[in-house]
Amino acid sequence: MIIARRIQWSHIIFYTWKSMAYFLTLSLIVYVLHHEFDLTWVAIPFNAVATLSTALAIFLGFKNNSAYDRWWEARKIWGKLVNYSRAWGREVLNLAIDDNQPGSEELKQWQHRMIYRHIAFVHALRVFLRQRHAYNEIENELLETHNQYHDIEPFLANNDLEMVLSKRNPPNYLLMEQGDDLLRAYQRGWLSDYRYVKLHETLTEFNNHQGMCERIKNTPFPRPYSFFSRLFVFIHGTLVPFAFIEVLGPFNIPLALVINFVFITLDYIGERTEDPFENRPGDTPLTSISLTIEENLKEMMGDPNLPTKPVPIHGIVF
Amino acid sequence: MIIARRIQWSHIIFYTWKSMAYFLTLSLIVYVLHHEFDLTWVAIPFNAVATLSTALAIFLGFKNNSAYDRWWEARKIWGKLVNYSRAWGREVLNLAIDDNQPGSEELKQWQHRMIYRHIAFVHALRVFLRQRHAYNEIENELLETHNQYHDIEPFLANNDLEMVLSKRNPPNYLLMEQGDDLLRAYQRGWLSDYRYVKLHETLTEFNNHQGMCERIKNTPFPRPYSFFSRLFVFIHGTLVPFAFIEVLGPFNIPLALVINFVFITLDYIGERTEDPFENRPGDTPLTSISLTIEENLKEMMGDPNLPTKPVPIHGIVF
Amino acid sequence: MIIARRIQWSHIIFYTWKSMAYFLTLSLIVYVLHHEFDLTWVAIPFNAVATLSTALAIFLGFKNNSAYDRWWEARKIWGKLVNYSRAWGREVLNLAIDDNQPGSEELKQWQHRMIYRHIAFVHALRVFLRQRHAYNEIENELLETHNQYHDIEPFLANNDLEMVLSKRNPPNYLLMEQGDDLLRAYQRGWLSDYRYVKLHETLTEFNNHQGMCERIKNTPFPRPYSFFSRLFVFIHGTLVPFAFIEVLGPFNIPLALVINFVFITLDYIGERTEDPFENRPGDTPLTSISLTIEENLKEMMGDPNLPTKPVPIHGIVF
Amino acid sequence: MIIARRIQWSHIIFYTWKSMAYFLTLSLIVYVLHHEFDLTWVAIPFNAVATLSTALAIFLGFKNNSAYDRWWEARKIWGKLVNYSRAWGREVLNLAIDDNQPGSEELKQWQHRMIYRHIAFVHALRVFLRQRHAYNEIENELLETHNQYHDIEPFLANNDLEMVLSKRNPPNYLLMEQGDDLLRAYQRGWLSDYRYVKLHETLTEFNNHQGMCERIKNTPFPRPYSFFSRLFVFIHGTLVPFAFIEVLGPFNIPLALVINFVFITLDYIGERTEDPFENRPGDTPLTSISLTIEENLKEMMGDPNLPTKPVPIHGIVF
Amino acid sequence: MIIARRIQWSHIIFYTWKSMAYFLTLSLIVYVLHHEFDLTWVAIPFNAVATLSTALAIFLGFKNNSAYDRWWEARKIWGKLVNYSRAWGREVLNLAIDDNQPGSEELKQWQHRMIYRHIAFVHALRVFLRQRHAYNEIENELLETHNQYHDIEPFLANNDLEMVLSKRNPPNYLLMEQGDDLLRAYQRGWLSDYRYVKLHETLTEFNNHQGMCERIKNTPFPRPYSFFSRLFVFIHGTLVPFAFIEVLGPFNIPLALVINFVFITLDYIGERTEDPFENRPGDTPLTSISLTIEENLKEMMGDPNLPTKPVPIHGIVF
Repeated sequence: MIIARRIQWSHIIFYTWKSMAYFLTLSLIVYVLHHEFDLTWVAIPFNAVATLSTALAIFLGFKNNSAYDRWWEARKIWGKLVNYSRAWGREVLNLAIDDNQPGSEELKQWQHRMIYRHIAFVHALRVFLRQRHAYNEIENELLETHNQYHDIEPFLANNDLEMVLSKRNPPNYLLMEQGDDLLRAYQRGWLSDYRYVKLHETLTEFNNHQGMCERIKNTPFPRPYSFFSRLFVFIHGTLVPFAFIEVLGPFNIPLALVINFVFITLDYIGERTEDPFENRPGDTPLTSISLTIEENLKEMMGDPNLPTKPVPIHGIVF
Repeated sequence: MIIARRIQWSHIIFYTWKSMAYFLTLSLIVYVLHHEFDLTWVAIPFNAVATLSTALAIFLGFKNNSAYDRWWEARKIWGKLVNYSRAWGREVLNLAIDDNQPGSEELKQWQHRMIYRHIAFVHALRVFLRQRHAYNEIENELLETHNQYHDIEPFLANNDLEMVLSKRNPPNYLLMEQGDDLLRAYQRGWLSDYRYVKLHETLTEFNNHQGMCERIKNTPFPRPYSFFSRLFVFIHGTLVPFAFIEVLGPFNIPLALVINFVFITLDYIGERTEDPFENRPGDTPLTSISLTIEENLKEMMGDPNLPTKPVPIHGIVF
Repeated sequence: MIIARRIQWSHIIFYTWKSMAYFLTLSLIVYVLHHEFDLTWVAIPFNAVATLSTALAIFLGFKNNSAYDRWWEARKIWGKLVNYSRAWGREVLNLAIDDNQPGSEELKQWQHRMIYRHIAFVHALRVFLRQRHAYNEIENELLETHNQYHDIEPFLANNDLEMVLSKRNPPNYLLMEQGDDLLRAYQRGWLSDYRYVKLHETLTEFNNHQGMCERIKNTPFPRPYSFFSRLFVFIHGTLVPFAFIEVLGPFNIPLALVINFVFITLDYIGERTEDPFENRPGDTPLTSISLTIEENLKEMMGDPNLPTKPVPIHGIVF
Repeated sequence: MIIARRIQWSHIIFYTWKSMAYFLTLSLIVYVLHHEFDLTWVAIPFNAVATLSTALAIFLGFKNNSAYDRWWEARKIWGKLVNYSRAWGREVLNLAIDDNQPGSEELKQWQHRMIYRHIAFVHALRVFLRQRHAYNEIENELLETHNQYHDIEPFLANNDLEMVLSKRNPPNYLLMEQGDDLLRAYQRGWLSDYRYVKLHETLTEFNNHQGMCERIKNTPFPRPYSFFSRLFVFIHGTLVPFAFIEVLGPFNIPLALVINFVFITLDYIGERTEDPFENRPGDTPLTSISLTIEENLKEMMGDPNLPTKPVPIHGIVF
Repeated sequence: MIIARRIQWSHIIFYTWKSMAYFLTLSLIVYVLHHEFDLTWVAIPFNAVATLSTALAIFLGFKNNSAYDRWWEARKIWGKLVNYSRAWGREVLNLAIDDNQPGSEELKQWQHRMIYRHIAFVHALRVFLRQRHAYNEIENELLETHNQYHDIEPFLANNDLEMVLSKRNPPNYLLMEQGDDLLRAYQRGWLSDYRYVKLHETLTEFNNHQGMCERIKNTPFPRPYSFFSRLFVFIHGTLVPFAFIEVLGPFNIPLALVINFVFITLDYIGERTEDPFENRPGDTPLTSISLTIEENLKEMMGDPNLPTKPVPIHGIVF
């Protein structure tokens, strides 16, 4: 997530220079043809471009809107994960009661296990979501590289990690373990029937949060929408230098570049926003949110060993 | 679901060539009439077209937006089906408890039956949804053909399949069987009153998922919206070659084709997205999601016989 | 609901001919004034019209969007009614248990009564919603006339029908009867406290479905939005023939008609969609959905007497 | 709520005449300056206006959309209030059971009190919401004046009214009384633990409905959005007469008026819709919905004294 | 929250004067270059600007829409907080029952503690949300400065405040304390199992409300959307004076200023709305809503010491 109010020009150039180079070359060629070789018939009326401009602007508006919706939904899901993680902590501490032996050591160990395994689930989900799909070509962007499963080790019992990593879907396996441990507490008599089901319902919330993230991760914004928005930006942009050559002469070149810069950028903004779990600067800040959850739950447990959040670098929070 | 970032030109041509042929012919005729036969009165002012362009672009924007909403809702429903299937697995394994005989073989068989019948439900729902409506004309498109009810056979008891297939709504019948089996568990004392109802509530979730898919399947995007968007694209496109003939002469032909290509494509994108259960490349990937559910539930059961997902062909996931 | 992909021209003409006749006459008068009487000052610059065109197109887009939302919400509500009807069937059959006398005849009769009275509720709701409001002027359109309360008679006990029809809100009365019958089952001991409340919660779902439909039925899309969209279409359309008369001469007439046809149709599409319970071709197909519910519930009861859905006529499902 | 399909011209003139008078005067002045005093430099190119027209149309579209959303949400909340009021009636009648003395008079009195106090709550909420905020300037509009707290008197016990009116938030106080009365029923043994909480949950629904209405009532649509849309309409409208004066001469006057009429009206439509609880013609029809709830609940109680809804006057339902 | 219908010009100038000064200077320079130095080639065709105008207007429309959604969601969350606070009061008073000793003093003290600590939670959440992020540059705006943690002191037991303030997330700590106190009541026998969990569910609602606010607070509207909308407004605005210089001469200056004023303002409206918890005039009125909750709960407790809401100053409610 970018928090700096100003986007660095180096970033903008990084993403747009190839397209801009194409349009610069094109404008130059158009100018040379028209002014040096006097091929005046290359000029086309501006209105022909205008028809496309409006349609393109509306289509890009739709694309940016949808990309933002995906990004914001991802953030909402992780927000819910924060809320229900806090509720989970409260419920584990308050709903499991040992009537015979208040404050029994065994119950406390169980509560500790349930809450720390939940922290492990959150970190595991982060790592799971940030694995790259082969079909998302990522260029040399600034990336967060600290997404590794061994982050969850401190929150698990000794030999659990290996078991967790042997599964195709590690976070889901952790939720199943939570369920098994709930059953153990039920059989010990710490949970009544009703409170037992209540805790299972909270686990189902986590099932939902995980599944919703997987949906966004594994279902790209429909490719035809992306592909044609890019294609139309190029079709439109290619016509632009022809439209003003007659009136403007050499000034056509900077003007065409400015107009195309706006449309290219509109296209890129959406594209950089639509996939929020790809480990890039504009991502939903999973690392930061995971640490908030860790911090909140540790504070609830009275654990003094609170995590420190990394300082934003270049105005970016991961 | 298309995951390839680039749409193949062969696909684009497949869908648009008829319309493009019409507009090419039309442009040629307009050119010949105007330049060869000197019927200069065929030219119309560009502004007449511009009025329609904006209205059309807005209408197409609305159509694409709605089509995307249908497609994304379909994906959301199947996402929920994934989440609640995992919850179902956890609940069946943890909420049914044989107090008298922990780990009884009979309970285990029941759990196995409940979970595998659920896998059958998921596959049956996929097949049920992908049956074609007569009124959706499908041309020779790349299709997924492996949607057959005998896919569910391995997950059912021996003589069940026949019974299931004799029903008008096989997936709904499977849910009813699940309900009857829950009653059996309740009568055996494995489920308390409260846990019994909880499992019925999860079945109601599946009722909802199925019904929501049926709604999208059986209710096409309102026909007047589709029909008139197509009609307006043609009305507008037919006027385009007349609008530039005076200024551009022969260059009118490629320009009219480019403009019309954009509008035709905008119309097609929506149309290819609005029906997500028709067994076509842009579909919601039901086969793939079904296999994910099968995999997750089998992993929960410790079944080593995990399914293998088919490799995407030409960047398409079914 | 229209399922035919092509709207018949007879339908289009039926709705638009009056407006088109007005615009034809107007264009002719403008032409005669301008060309025969040489009143060239009647021409106005096209730009004056263009200002209005964009504003009008955006407003019509908003109207069509909202109309579609109403229509789609109506369909969603009836979709939920399908889902919860199936759940109701499952719950009535599985949650009511006679511990003393498993499979008692009396319980079976009660279950039959609860499920068939629910079918009666669904059909009654359909009839209730399709009564016409005096303020919705309906011309001679193709209509579904088979919405009569005696449709529910086969699903009720003998003397109930009269009682039901004597109420101002028959479907709500049926839900109240369901509640009373639940109380009887509770007092017989067939329902535990918890399962009793669960069934009442499902009835509350039906309260919600009915009330949501009544909301759409009784609250027209805000009249100022409808009225002014129509008025603006006419203001704009009236200016159109003046805008091109200078350039186009007689060709102004067909062009003005084409442009106005597009705007009129955009206005009509929304208007025909915004009221989904008026018994017209574009309606939410209540009859068809009611029969689906009847079919599903009868199949659950093992009743071989399944209903047959009427064949679509002219591509219309009611 | 306006149900008449045609808005009366007297209404339109009432709202717009001041603005129209301004634009008429302005157009006349522009004409006189340009044609009589020959100040031809007052003319400005149309394109300058066109830039603003599109931006303004989009902004007005957004405003109308948001205003409609507020209005429709208000209607949805009152729709839910209808649904849950019916559910409340059913629950009070069916969930409170006197096992020892079926059909006891005391229970019946309690049920009567709970249901009639709910009718009082509904009417009190209507009156509470329709109090005017000082900052909403209301001119001499057609108003519903029958919103007075003594409407609730028939539904309360004798000395309750005074107590209710002494509170800052009367409807909330009524809900608290309902809660206290539930506790009494619980202590009498008419409600089990579970059914007791269920009825409290329904009261929480009413808390939600009330609070959602208060939110809409007390939070105007952000003033900057309203203020600047009005300001931009005037800036744009003021430029219009200058834009066509050169081409049109005296005909500029009616044309400028027509164009400005459209933009002014677009602005007014939103403004008249955004506050649905101000006792004006376009309001959500609280009086009518309150009477529906009264009617439904009385019918459930077998009370023959059903209310009569007022006949719509001039096509307006309050 | 601004309730005054008219925005003061001093406010408008405060926000826009820097940009307007830039555009004024630019227009003057363009005029001097064109008219004094006769550099007529600085003029560019208006159509070049028009292409950008539409795209920019659509993009600003999207931005304003999203900003409004954030603001309105913030208001909705605090609305829910009001509703559930009232429900919390009712539940604490009615669901905790001392069967052995009705009206026991100890229970009353517990109820008082639970309700007043909730008021403390609400005020603490307000203060917590209104802390400034370093990256939101705030200039010298009219600010609400009365957001301090010692506001919650009167609602807490003596030595609690220090403990609360020592936590990283004070409101969350208060919710945890509520949970611990619920457990105490459960162990005293005042709450049945079911009523105990019900109160925990209401606490989970508050977890949700807090977390949703934190999400909006900590996740700015995606910076690329904000940054480029500002950049495009300046690119577009910089081209405007060149577009009309040829036709208008000196009148180009006021016209360019008016057009740019509209676009700048459209950009600012969104920017001032998108962050609703920054202690500025357009904020969600947290102080006012907190006092409403305090008032409602105190009235429920019969506490005569009701708070007085501050009078709006300059039409602003904080």
